[in-house]
Amino acid sequence: MSTNLISSYKKLMEKTKDIIVFASSEAIVHWDMETMMPPKAISLRSQQLSLLSRLEHQMSTSPEIGKLIQEITHSKDYDKLDAIQKRNVYLIKKHYDEQTKLPEELVAETAKQQAITIDTWKKAKAAKNYNMFKPELEKLLELRKKAAEILMEVKETATPYDALIDIFEPKMTAKEITRVFNELREGLVSILKKCEKAPNQPDTSILQRKIPIDIQRKIAVALSEAVGYDVTSKTAGGRIDETEHPFTTGYYDDVRITTHYFEEMFASSIFSVLHEAGHAMYEQNLNPEWMYQPVGNACSSGFHESQSRMIENIVGRSREFWTYFLPKLKELAGKTLADIALDKFVHAINQVKPSKIRVEADEVTYGLHIIVRFNIERDLFANKCTVKELPEIWNQRYKDYLGVKIENDSEGVMQDTHWASGYFGYFPSYALGNIYSGQILEVMNRDLPNWKTQLTKGNFKETKQWLIKNVHAHGNLFDPADLIKKITGKELTVKPYLSYLNEKYSKLYGF
Amino acid sequence: MSTNLISSYKKLMEKTKDIIVFASSEAIVHWDMETMMPPKAISLRSQQLSLLSRLEHQMSTSPEIGKLIQEITHSKDYDKLDAIQKRNVYLIKKHYDEQTKLPEELVAETAKQQAITIDTWKKAKAAKNYNMFKPELEKLLELRKKAAEILMEVKETATPYDALIDIFEPKMTAKEITRVFNELREGLVSILKKCEKAPNQPDTSILQRKIPIDIQRKIAVALSEAVGYDVTSKTAGGRIDETEHPFTTGYYDDVRITTHYFEEMFASSIFSVLHEAGHAMYEQNLNPEWMYQPVGNACSSGFHESQSRMIENIVGRSREFWTYFLPKLKELAGKTLADIALDKFVHAINQVKPSKIRVEADEVTYGLHIIVRFNIERDLFANKCTVKELPEIWNQRYKDYLGVKIENDSEGVMQDTHWASGYFGYFPSYALGNIYSGQILEVMNRDLPNWKTQLTKGNFKETKQWLIKNVHAHGNLFDPADLIKKITGKELTVKPYLSYLNEKYSKLYGF
Repeated sequence: MSTNLISSYKKLMEKTKDIIVFASSEAIVHWDMETMMPPKAISLRSQQLSLLSRLEHQMSTSPEIGKLIQEITHSKDYDKLDAIQKRNVYLIKKHYDEQTKLPEELVAETAKQQAITIDTWKKAKAAKNYNMFKPELEKLLELRKKAAEILMEVKETATPYDALIDIFEPKMTAKEITRVFNELREGLVSILKKCEKAPNQPDTSILQRKIPIDIQRKIAVALSEAVGYDVTSKTAGGRIDETEHPFTTGYYDDVRITTHYFEEMFASSIFSVLHEAGHAMYEQNLNPEWMYQPVGNACSSGFHESQSRMIENIVGRSREFWTYFLPKLKELAGKTLADIALDKFVHAINQVKPSKIRVEADEVTYGLHIIVRFNIERDLFANKCTVKELPEIWNQRYKDYLGVKIENDSEGVMQDTHWASGYFGYFPSYALGNIYSGQILEVMNRDLPNWKTQLTKGNFKETKQWLIKNVHAHGNLFDPADLIKKITGKELTVKPYLSYLNEKYSKLYGF
Repeated sequence: MSTNLISSYKKLMEKTKDIIVFASSEAIVHWDMETMMPPKAISLRSQQLSLLSRLEHQMSTSPEIGKLIQEITHSKDYDKLDAIQKRNVYLIKKHYDEQTKLPEELVAETAKQQAITIDTWKKAKAAKNYNMFKPELEKLLELRKKAAEILMEVKETATPYDALIDIFEPKMTAKEITRVFNELREGLVSILKKCEKAPNQPDTSILQRKIPIDIQRKIAVALSEAVGYDVTSKTAGGRIDETEHPFTTGYYDDVRITTHYFEEMFASSIFSVLHEAGHAMYEQNLNPEWMYQPVGNACSSGFHESQSRMIENIVGRSREFWTYFLPKLKELAGKTLADIALDKFVHAINQVKPSKIRVEADEVTYGLHIIVRFNIERDLFANKCTVKELPEIWNQRYKDYLGVKIENDSEGVMQDTHWASGYFGYFPSYALGNIYSGQILEVMNRDLPNWKTQLTKGNFKETKQWLIKNVHAHGNLFDPADLIKKITGKELTVKPYLSYLNEKYSKLYGF
């Protein structure tokens, strides 16, 4: 390899390390805002975050980075870089091209409009008034359409919407998503109907028993430790705090989750902790040799969801997990849950019931909520529908797909923050995550036939190691389509996920 | 005023705002390390902090700032700037000149040696082995001497040591400090002797009664609210957390304190909370119109100490404060403190007793600890003594000044972290703070003759407002010598502080 190439690559990686370390510091400041910040600090904090994001943008788009990329990709020795080095250069170039192609005014205007739209969304949601929200959403959509047009050129995608999907799920397309979502929908509806008709229905009243918040905090810690997310030891790289909307943030040795506690809904924090712990363990167990390199990031939002939903649902809502953990839960909760039988509990936490709110949906209906949103997004960006028509379309789809009647737009089209935040293209990740998790589970069942038996004994170590080796440690070395192939030997397919659901729910509901 | 001058000043202030906002973000990341960070994150965090400090240095020394300073100070219209604008330019120029004159290698080498010296200090202190510490301290001292030589040129001080003092106490000199410290020492020793001879000695055993930590946390909140440091309301701009060594950090609307709790030493957290609350209120109540400007900072380390020690000692150890707060304390502590009489309690928390450890010292002997350190620092930088001789000199001075025998260097010369951290020039601030607080008290007694009566009723509002108006709101508009003159009409003098001590302790000890 020529000394020039080596030296340019080294310089590029140093600059990239700075950007990564900088972004991880920004994440701390952001986390602090959500969890610890005194209320009076809000205006100072918005100044701090806006400065940090401006500086990060400057760092990522500095002409020096452009020059180094140019030197490397045009070097006659380029092919002597190894696969990891090439991937690093590819990821840096992709980010650089996108960031430099978006006009600064558009970025600034979008950030401003985002803040306005989120604020208006909160007010409109409280007032159950879509008309209040509509004009701001229209403006934000126009800005995202402009960005999508520009990104389509850079990313060479077939459509503007594909360019937005690519931000969260690289190389994925609306066409491919449509194909798998159609199959997914058919499968989910079929299982849903069987569950609804089954005579064996769960008693969910046990989940409304009051558990004091301080006990729920102890349960959260015990749960996270049970799945291997360390928040208590002297070498812990995580912690659990409280926010209205649970989230995960951090980098490698410092990945934190949040949850919320409701006295009369103890299961809510249980599954949010397991979900976020799944996200956190993915971030913590990326290949340590790749720390501070672009390959040392997660693969995609969909893969992230595959890991969170794996821990939350496939592990966390399994009979095997609760065989081990229900006695622990009873011990922590005292008398309140003493009389609950394992089977009744497991059925209760796996109730299948169409609902209006995505975040409260069960495993079977969850995908239908996502498909509604994806179809609308795709049509919005193809100019097949308008912001004005959203409530009508939304309500009709909920009737068709889930059989529920939306009474007002706050429990309908305005329920999620994603569109108000301009995150068009994100929603598919959730369902893709489920699909990936089904495919990964199929291989895991083959490689570790014993994992569920071990789980009943509280032994999750080997399973966690398998996930680390087969999923987490690959970091961002592959695009999602290549990673799922690498892990499972197969292309994207909904079949394993549907088989998993079918098997699980036929047992629970007796169909 | 010429448009050029206006535009240059505006640009300079924008760049300065960025630096201030950036530094306040850095402070959050630093605070997080001390309070919230998962233990595994330590190496990542040191990368983050070192990057942020490098970027801050780049921002403060950017050639553009130099150019703008040049344009402004050389403008024919310079004199048309008002006093505040001139002070801003002066402070920015001073910082810029210092930062640009220090060679980057020296800064980097010092940072590295600091980390090594602190680490070695911890180990040497645990091993009670000064010889282990000595070589690293020698290296760090040499680096600080080099920096002091350079800063002496820039700051035009008489000696290198004066240049270091100037970092913490602008324009103050070792000569002036020597003058006031000689007088201070004489006064303190005289009061100490009277206390020691007095028949009326306190019973401090009541301070060893066990108070559970969770109760102490509630006491801390009640105390901070009592002096007007808000940590609970919906508009609170502060919070209390726990660290081994208490500290205050933050900016205007987000100023946080930390404390430590010991079950069998409840007074420890009481006075550390009051001390830090004093620091915090100073930062919170700087002139809000000056936020993001250099004048919107505290005046000096000495003035900071004047405010913390005012709240901790002059207010917080007064009979009047405890007339109000002792019943509250008893209520919170339950039976444990029920039988304690006000007079006994007030005498116990004001026990005067020579000791070896500075941070445990009472109001009377505290200054003597500082004078020992100042004299040694001054002699070190004047090459009148060496690092090798420190233990011998230290122990002799403790015998002479305080009459105590140092058994080993861990309770002697190695007790504090300041020298291991390279903070030569800082120690005098502590005693200067006491001296300032005495002068400020004298004026406060004149302006608000009723303040102590109000304090017995738990009404501290008017006193706090007086401190805000007369001290905090001046920010960094004046150097300390000018500020004390502005507030009190007098030059620096130890007399009011010694009068305060004399009056207080003659009553307590009956001499």
